[in-house]
Amino acid sequence: MSLVVVGSVAYDGVETPHGRVERMLGGACTYIALAASFFTEVGIVAVVGEDFCQSDFDLLASRGIDLAGLERVPGKTFFWSGIYSHDMNDRTTLRTDLNVFAGFNPKLPQHYRSQPYLLLGNIQPALQRAVREQMLAPELVGGDTMNYWITDAREELLRTIRDWDCLLINDSEARQLSGQHNLRGAAQAIFEMGPRTVVIKRGEYGAILFRPEGHFIVPGYLLEDVFDPTGAGDSFAGGFFGYLASRGLDLKDGRADPRELRRAVIYGSVMGSFCCEKFGVDRFRTLTRAEINARYDEFKRFTEF
Amino acid sequence: MSLVVVGSVAYDGVETPHGRVERMLGGACTYIALAASFFTEVGIVAVVGEDFCQSDFDLLASRGIDLAGLERVPGKTFFWSGIYSHDMNDRTTLRTDLNVFAGFNPKLPQHYRSQPYLLLGNIQPALQRAVREQMLAPELVGGDTMNYWITDAREELLRTIRDWDCLLINDSEARQLSGQHNLRGAAQAIFEMGPRTVVIKRGEYGAILFRPEGHFIVPGYLLEDVFDPTGAGDSFAGGFFGYLASRGLDLKDGRADPRELRRAVIYGSVMGSFCCEKFGVDRFRTLTRAEINARYDEFKRFTEF
Repeated sequence: MSLVVVGSVAYDGVETPHGRVERMLGGACTYIALAASFFTEVGIVAVVGEDFCQSDFDLLASRGIDLAGLERVPGKTFFWSGIYSHDMNDRTTLRTDLNVFAGFNPKLPQHYRSQPYLLLGNIQPALQRAVREQMLAPELVGGDTMNYWITDAREELLRTIRDWDCLLINDSEARQLSGQHNLRGAAQAIFEMGPRTVVIKRGEYGAILFRPEGHFIVPGYLLEDVFDPTGAGDSFAGGFFGYLASRGLDLKDGRADPRELRRAVIYGSVMGSFCCEKFGVDRFRTLTRAEINARYDEFKRFTEF
Repeated sequence: MSLVVVGSVAYDGVETPHGRVERMLGGACTYIALAASFFTEVGIVAVVGEDFCQSDFDLLASRGIDLAGLERVPGKTFFWSGIYSHDMNDRTTLRTDLNVFAGFNPKLPQHYRSQPYLLLGNIQPALQRAVREQMLAPELVGGDTMNYWITDAREELLRTIRDWDCLLINDSEARQLSGQHNLRGAAQAIFEMGPRTVVIKRGEYGAILFRPEGHFIVPGYLLEDVFDPTGAGDSFAGGFFGYLASRGLDLKDGRADPRELRRAVIYGSVMGSFCCEKFGVDRFRTLTRAEINARYDEFKRFTEF
């Protein structure tokens, strides 16, 4: 194993203009781990309830994901449901039942602690910190967060991200966290908070990688059809971090390889785009490394001049 | 001369979060011609009133723009004013006084008619057609349009664009014109309407060039500060078409050079980005070709992988 991922493993109910699924496997940790598993060996830290299906365990296991850190406890698995607007640019949460997630107290199995890569999915910053502290000496720590923690747990969040190497965040959250509308300014402000690598996700418009020495912008992939954007940002994170881990890359100032970092952003974009092609995690059931490589080449073709 | 541009020459009142200008030179034709003048020789077809300032004539003339087709008639010049939202993604029109523009009946000077390139700025489709018909045998005809003509003069617009080689349009208008939300689908539908080259402008997110054989996406330039986005789309069109004209390029099926077309999109993006750096056309007063080339290289650096 090489990459430890922590976050939610959940059941989701999703409605998009293409249809509706009452209950399917979801959660940030699930999407990150599945996407990363195409690049490197992954172990997850999460909690599920007694209702968690064997077939969902099997899916994760089939991708070689280490489930030693996946606790199963009495009660029900975290449940989220939402509905997307016609253009899929907005979504409304219909229900959030934390269930067993309310008492989540992540404990890392012994063999996780010495791993070099750690990706902290979007959960309470104090829990992200608790996981980070259980790791011995990770070479690279990255994480995600969301508007709720930025406004309601700001101090805790700032204390948490202070020693992260990399923050992955969407554009509106970057503005909220930094208080800067301009994204260059937002990234500068976030550098001061700790992370020296900031990846700003822009949904259908792609992503920007900011480093103190410069930035890299990739446009979003133009899908023929977006079935379900749920999990696209987490799949991006999984592809990005999975690639870094697979190459043994470091992001410390002066040691980051800018070309490899850009490639990681493309692999993140590739995984985010595949995620949207089917409901939930379905696209990852059949996806192959050859398809991933072909889409990487497509990114090259439609951006090169 | 090589490129004929038709459209509005106007006075604008603009308020952005950075300040307010009561009255300054504006209009689609002005922005297109100024931007294109850094690449090729341009002649304009437009109408102004008696209030049109000598210093504004002088600015256009200083860029070598042929003003033989700029009619001056009794009355006042077209006036538009608007105010931008805090994030500059929305603007509200405060006033539109067509003035002399209401009676605009474009007549091309004899020496314009044999020119190879024609760019029809956003005006009433019937006027765009009237200009097109006065040209002898242009090699390349492109134009812009807007939501108002798409909804209120749809048949006339479809008749007009039928023989254009290239349509430049923003994303929401492309969706409106085609009835397709997906931009790939929108471009396909527009190909069927006539133009085989469709450039979709996405504001701060950049632009997409669609051709039947494939597409090219460029992200928007990340400005330190956006002073005034007025005219950015027209400046894009001017840079794009100006570059094509300067290289003697053709867009007929099988004759378009895809590499040159991509370069034209980058030059369009470069000119759109410069336009936003100062109020109105001010940035074009001091801009140099060396600055344009340096920004072109920047686009290469921040998109390459």
